[in-house]
Amino acid sequence: MEAMTIDLNSDLGESFGRWQLGDDGALLRLVSSANVACGFHAGDPQGIRRTVRAAREAGAAVGAHPGYFDLRGFGRVPMQLPDAIVRDDVLYQLGALAALAHAEGVRLAHVKPHGALYNAMATHEELALAVAEAVGAFDRRLPIMVLAGSAAERALLAAGTHVLREGFLDRAYLPDGTLAPRGTPGAVLDDPDRVVEQALRLATEHRVLAVDGTELTLEVDTLCLHGDNAAALELARRVRDALEGAGVRIASAGLLHDT
Amino acid sequence: MEAMTIDLNSDLGESFGRWQLGDDGALLRLVSSANVACGFHAGDPQGIRRTVRAAREAGAAVGAHPGYFDLRGFGRVPMQLPDAIVRDDVLYQLGALAALAHAEGVRLAHVKPHGALYNAMATHEELALAVAEAVGAFDRRLPIMVLAGSAAERALLAAGTHVLREGFLDRAYLPDGTLAPRGTPGAVLDDPDRVVEQALRLATEHRVLAVDGTELTLEVDTLCLHGDNAAALELARRVRDALEGAGVRIASAGLLHDT
Amino acid sequence: MEAMTIDLNSDLGESFGRWQLGDDGALLRLVSSANVACGFHAGDPQGIRRTVRAAREAGAAVGAHPGYFDLRGFGRVPMQLPDAIVRDDVLYQLGALAALAHAEGVRLAHVKPHGALYNAMATHEELALAVAEAVGAFDRRLPIMVLAGSAAERALLAAGTHVLREGFLDRAYLPDGTLAPRGTPGAVLDDPDRVVEQALRLATEHRVLAVDGTELTLEVDTLCLHGDNAAALELARRVRDALEGAGVRIASAGLLHDT
Amino acid sequence: MEAMTIDLNSDLGESFGRWQLGDDGALLRLVSSANVACGFHAGDPQGIRRTVRAAREAGAAVGAHPGYFDLRGFGRVPMQLPDAIVRDDVLYQLGALAALAHAEGVRLAHVKPHGALYNAMATHEELALAVAEAVGAFDRRLPIMVLAGSAAERALLAAGTHVLREGFLDRAYLPDGTLAPRGTPGAVLDDPDRVVEQALRLATEHRVLAVDGTELTLEVDTLCLHGDNAAALELARRVRDALEGAGVRIASAGLLHDT
Repeated sequence: MEAMTIDLNSDLGESFGRWQLGDDGALLRLVSSANVACGFHAGDPQGIRRTVRAAREAGAAVGAHPGYFDLRGFGRVPMQLPDAIVRDDVLYQLGALAALAHAEGVRLAHVKPHGALYNAMATHEELALAVAEAVGAFDRRLPIMVLAGSAAERALLAAGTHVLREGFLDRAYLPDGTLAPRGTPGAVLDDPDRVVEQALRLATEHRVLAVDGTELTLEVDTLCLHGDNAAALELARRVRDALEGAGVRIASAGLLHDT
Repeated sequence: MEAMTIDLNSDLGESFGRWQLGDDGALLRLVSSANVACGFHAGDPQGIRRTVRAAREAGAAVGAHPGYFDLRGFGRVPMQLPDAIVRDDVLYQLGALAALAHAEGVRLAHVKPHGALYNAMATHEELALAVAEAVGAFDRRLPIMVLAGSAAERALLAAGTHVLREGFLDRAYLPDGTLAPRGTPGAVLDDPDRVVEQALRLATEHRVLAVDGTELTLEVDTLCLHGDNAAALELARRVRDALEGAGVRIASAGLLHDT
Repeated sequence: MEAMTIDLNSDLGESFGRWQLGDDGALLRLVSSANVACGFHAGDPQGIRRTVRAAREAGAAVGAHPGYFDLRGFGRVPMQLPDAIVRDDVLYQLGALAALAHAEGVRLAHVKPHGALYNAMATHEELALAVAEAVGAFDRRLPIMVLAGSAAERALLAAGTHVLREGFLDRAYLPDGTLAPRGTPGAVLDDPDRVVEQALRLATEHRVLAVDGTELTLEVDTLCLHGDNAAALELARRVRDALEGAGVRIASAGLLHDT
Repeated sequence: MEAMTIDLNSDLGESFGRWQLGDDGALLRLVSSANVACGFHAGDPQGIRRTVRAAREAGAAVGAHPGYFDLRGFGRVPMQLPDAIVRDDVLYQLGALAALAHAEGVRLAHVKPHGALYNAMATHEELALAVAEAVGAFDRRLPIMVLAGSAAERALLAAGTHVLREGFLDRAYLPDGTLAPRGTPGAVLDDPDRVVEQALRLATEHRVLAVDGTELTLEVDTLCLHGDNAAALELARRVRDALEGAGVRIASAGLLHDT
């Protein structure tokens, strides 16, 4: 019998110049995969490098977290850009991060698009394929994290791209397997017990309860942890403890490199 | 007897978004080395990629042209940055450009720091070494273009870094081999005949006449051509024709890659 | 009998740092209103000030041309921003331009939102009202240029905001009075004679022929001239000559200031 | 007998987009003057407006805090820019802030240049005069905060510009009245008692002890408080309490506007 395994990922390296954001050190004690900002929505070269080093020391796999070219909007503003521009923007960011990581003796294990780009890919197949084209031009073995059950997952699998299917602990699912839109009542789970429960169900049963009580099957490879504040960090710790307590192994699902 | 050879380089890919700059196509018919902007002082990913493709098609070697993070100042504003920040900024840019070049089947042949960074390196050994550290972390075989006779040349040679010594066609030299500062009378040569003459003397005799008439020895591997306007382009063509007429072979002095 | 009058406007001051764009001098000989970039999509303070001075010397009214905070996309990328952010962004840009104009002895005569913001306002009333709120907070007498016949025109008129209705010389109109979307066949008129004819009909009859031949009534106060290249400038000159030849007076429709 | 009065100022509104910085609310309970970032080194329009509103509600005077155009370097990187560019950059920022402040019913009371610009003005008279030219073009009654005893103070006074002379609580002074350069031993006072003592001596006696024990006369109108962390805030509170305990009135030294 195969042991249950799940990847825990988190967004890191999102400081910029004078501005600090997040508690990278605390999160790195919890996750198996670090998504490192690449400079377009956050992250400057020196901070990126520091984050890569910290991830290496913590034993977390390092992935690229490319976003839209929009520091002020933190890559969260929906933008209508031609797919070819997004493709080259992603490629630029992958190369930039990889060079800094290489200087720290680290190779990239995965790619997780950020914010509004991630969301747009979930529903726009052509955009998802443009991102996959960038990743493929860089290293075709690198897997891309996408929303489990999304159009991006289907498009990338059909194109032969490696994907890591991401599930959400703290978001409500609709009966069709998509996320309840932020801003609708109950879209974000605020009861810590329910968050832990959803994490366990996703990791151990590949199932999730939709808002109407329907039980859905949802295959996920990775779960996203947040650490924006003390409460989020505390919840992230509870989730990790609960998973380990249930016998789930926490490990990167990304590309393995010989070391 | 070895044939005389010189590299001709030019700065390319310096458009940004809606803004076009320079006649890359015309310059690529003249130079052996294209210094491609990397996004910090100019250049967006799609334009960078287009420039790399054009250079490949023209048979020019592609080098990185990293600069300070300053689009508005076009990397020409002198800035006092810690060396470690410049080092990581250069590394970031090298990786970004290399990823886009790789997607076009092109590998980097050299690095030429841009503008105020180039100038600061000419007199600040520690800064030059910080840039060399970035280049070394990326690919230690890559040569760096520096001002011939400068502190950067001495520091990098002492550190075992490959350098390409750059001479200037249109700048007056002081008796000590440094450039007459811009803004001083006669610092920029505006007589096309003298520019052509200086190019020939540098390429064929490794000599240059200083402002006081002294003849200096100046070993140079590469000469920089400008194409900012029609007159500059016409002069660049005259220089190339004169060099070829004198039996000088025009060829990249950068790293050769098997193809 | 009242003489026919029309305002001719053009976008100016869209250079940025090292990058020059457009032939402001040539356009200023043709237009009565200069829409001056405010730094978010284009324009740096020194260039803005130079443009204001040139407009003053040419006798053109100076208006603000605020856009999205997106230099790389030149304010042309559709973005989903909260209305309150757009409102404060516009207010910031108005104040910045007005201060530079004040130093040149010039007061603002109008506001013309730029690019993707202009387009979004044409169909999003709430966004149009947010921009009007910014303009009203700055100087409630300032008129705002909006697409003639658009939702923006209706919303602003209902809110008691001064509007200048803008018509397009070189765009095809649908039978409902909206513009044929760019990218659809025939959306952009490329026959200079038809452009001149549409300008004359709009200015003298307040009518336009829709793509299906229907004649529409379209009240316009101002027409936009482009000068991106030699052909565009030549066409702009023809339009102005034709209007003057038909007895139309070219004059700013913006706010008059005592001088 | 005139009561002793001193202005306490602090830098506020230095968040940007997603990134928060400083505890503006806590500082506003302590200071009489708020220096509000203007978007070039920090501050986005919506955050600027929020800061102005908070300052108004707290009864603090609002001043402009313009800096170099350098978000990544937070305006702290020394840059060699032509004076005319700095002048127009300052004017742009004054106008932008004033428009947002006007929308909140607030008028500017002073200008305090930020970071590397402030420091450069302290030793470069021409630069200080360029900034004064910008302020004068905007509102010639507005005073400018400069380092007490600096070249900027002398140049501006000679030019008839209103100045507010700023003293530092936590920096060591050299016998010639200039600040001991950061990075030299003892340049920053880290003993809270000495900081409070220096504040009291500056405010009540217009004197300060230099590093060699010399007692210098230093006329100051305003003192700068920092609130970067809990300890800094606690110290700022102690300083204010000590001043008030010594009978010093805390009040803005800036321009008074009728309300």
